[in-house]
Amino acid sequence: MIYQKILRKEVTHLNSCIDVSFKNAVKFLKKNDNYIILTHASPDGDTLGSGYALYYGLKQLGKQVEVICPDVIPQEYSYFLCDTDHISRDGATLIAVDIADKRLLGALEEDFGDVIDLNIDHHISNTRYAKSLYLDADASATCEIIYEILSALKVKINDTIAKAIYTGISTDTGCFKYSCVTARTHKIAAALYSYNIEADVINKVMFDTKSKALLSLERMVLDTAEYHFDDKCMIVTVTAEMLKATGCKGTQLEGITNISRSVDGVLAGVTIKQTGDDTYKVSVRTYEPLNASQICVSLGGGGHKNAAAVILRGSLNEVKEKILNAIKRQMEETNAWTSAAR
Amino acid sequence: MIYQKILRKEVTHLNSCIDVSFKNAVKFLKKNDNYIILTHASPDGDTLGSGYALYYGLKQLGKQVEVICPDVIPQEYSYFLCDTDHISRDGATLIAVDIADKRLLGALEEDFGDVIDLNIDHHISNTRYAKSLYLDADASATCEIIYEILSALKVKINDTIAKAIYTGISTDTGCFKYSCVTARTHKIAAALYSYNIEADVINKVMFDTKSKALLSLERMVLDTAEYHFDDKCMIVTVTAEMLKATGCKGTQLEGITNISRSVDGVLAGVTIKQTGDDTYKVSVRTYEPLNASQICVSLGGGGHKNAAAVILRGSLNEVKEKILNAIKRQMEETNAWTSAAR
Repeated sequence: MIYQKILRKEVTHLNSCIDVSFKNAVKFLKKNDNYIILTHASPDGDTLGSGYALYYGLKQLGKQVEVICPDVIPQEYSYFLCDTDHISRDGATLIAVDIADKRLLGALEEDFGDVIDLNIDHHISNTRYAKSLYLDADASATCEIIYEILSALKVKINDTIAKAIYTGISTDTGCFKYSCVTARTHKIAAALYSYNIEADVINKVMFDTKSKALLSLERMVLDTAEYHFDDKCMIVTVTAEMLKATGCKGTQLEGITNISRSVDGVLAGVTIKQTGDDTYKVSVRTYEPLNASQICVSLGGGGHKNAAAVILRGSLNEVKEKILNAIKRQMEETNAWTSAAR
Repeated sequence: MIYQKILRKEVTHLNSCIDVSFKNAVKFLKKNDNYIILTHASPDGDTLGSGYALYYGLKQLGKQVEVICPDVIPQEYSYFLCDTDHISRDGATLIAVDIADKRLLGALEEDFGDVIDLNIDHHISNTRYAKSLYLDADASATCEIIYEILSALKVKINDTIAKAIYTGISTDTGCFKYSCVTARTHKIAAALYSYNIEADVINKVMFDTKSKALLSLERMVLDTAEYHFDDKCMIVTVTAEMLKATGCKGTQLEGITNISRSVDGVLAGVTIKQTGDDTYKVSVRTYEPLNASQICVSLGGGGHKNAAAVILRGSLNEVKEKILNAIKRQMEETNAWTSAAR
């Protein structure tokens, strides 16, 4: 492998992740000449917005920079993408953006998982796999951090950079809807509006456009809806057959995952997506007092307080039983059964 | 009528609406002691947020203030409502907030339609029915204007006022999604975050909560989806039977009307809602080059460029034929058939 050398050289750094300050992260980005920026697999607006905004910024500083995404980038992000440099891995400085766990590097994990030089992230659950980590868990999106880094680097923001950053913030916050949003988020958004970002067009694409196929899938998925525990838990299922019949890709299912969280009174919304013959990705969305992360961690998964996931094996019914038991346990522990939450 | 006297006295002012400056609008609100604030019928977050934020502000200045809404206020706004003063109409100063046309006063039009002293609004289509008008069509919401007015009045913003204003801005902009949003909108939002507004809770209620019944209705409605004209037109139908079976009210159908506008490639999204045995309300949502207003006007209805409606009589099939013909005509006139729009 082409990266074998780096891998061997750096393996001693494992499990000795250093937390760096904002100032030192900025210094680090000034210091070197060749950067490879890695985004996570199944790329979303925040990892791509972060990666490309940082790319444009470092290019302005005269660096050689490559952005590598482990998966094909969905076409809807094309308005801020470009062909980046192709640089030698040897001696390059490796930056991960918005990647909480090296497993999220997907196909690139083997080559890059243990040799990331600087990880820039906002996930409190970051597993500290990089040599250095700049973590700001108060940021609504990694793009919020990247905006501040570019400002500190005195990068001249332009329309494309502003669109990339806006996309990351908007998509990671549900368009400023979620609890991760702060005054800082809105201040940055206000600053981005001084560029021609066409935010309404971005938001239309990101939130209000679905394919005919996806709408068909939604119809099928709604037919699977089941309610448990006095309607406090809702489960919908996406089978491989449904995906095949409609031609939908797994990456288009974000909206479907949100269906189960939007029903009045539901504290745990579960979406079970078949990923193999007897493999299912179970996405859990919760409201207080329930904690999606705790539910999924108890089964070997992980995530955020309100949104987490776990891969489970077995028949669909076995998978349902496992997740329902985990939810039931937490409902009992937190008195969610009787609480008037929501 | 109790307001007859005011009505007679002021009728001479009709059709002589004076545009006032921001400064004079603020002066006007300082000057008097008794204010009646009117919101529009079928109240939304912006008219209510404006009305109540202004109420709390004027109360701080020691005024007597009453807020009157022509309709029952939906329960979801209760977090910023209160019992306002009840004051004599005689000699009171009448303020309309977010009311572009006196017909929007609904049941209150007869009594108040021609006697409004100051109208504070952001709709470019304002029909200038009040004696004085402070119109700022660049504001994303009337609440944006109210925030600036309260600041100019040196009102101390508190959590409740901040929640009211945030609600108006958030709901009128689709949570910062639409083209009416500007840097100013985000700056105000940032300022509101210094209060305990629980924006995520507000947004959850306003955007992401639907009843189990509404979800069932959505499922039924999706089953009616039909595509026409090379998938550039989509029709969904809500029958009286579906409403009865699910127990959904007509006022809950905003989300359903949006289904047909969200499908990729659809230029005309039509929602046909049965309102009587042979009566249907047809809501049309369009993208360029189509014009929903022109389509609906051609059948006797009206509305905006991108969102309009018309009441049609006949069987469901006859109604479909009428609206499809009108859309077909416009598609031919505008070359929408071959255009690559969207």
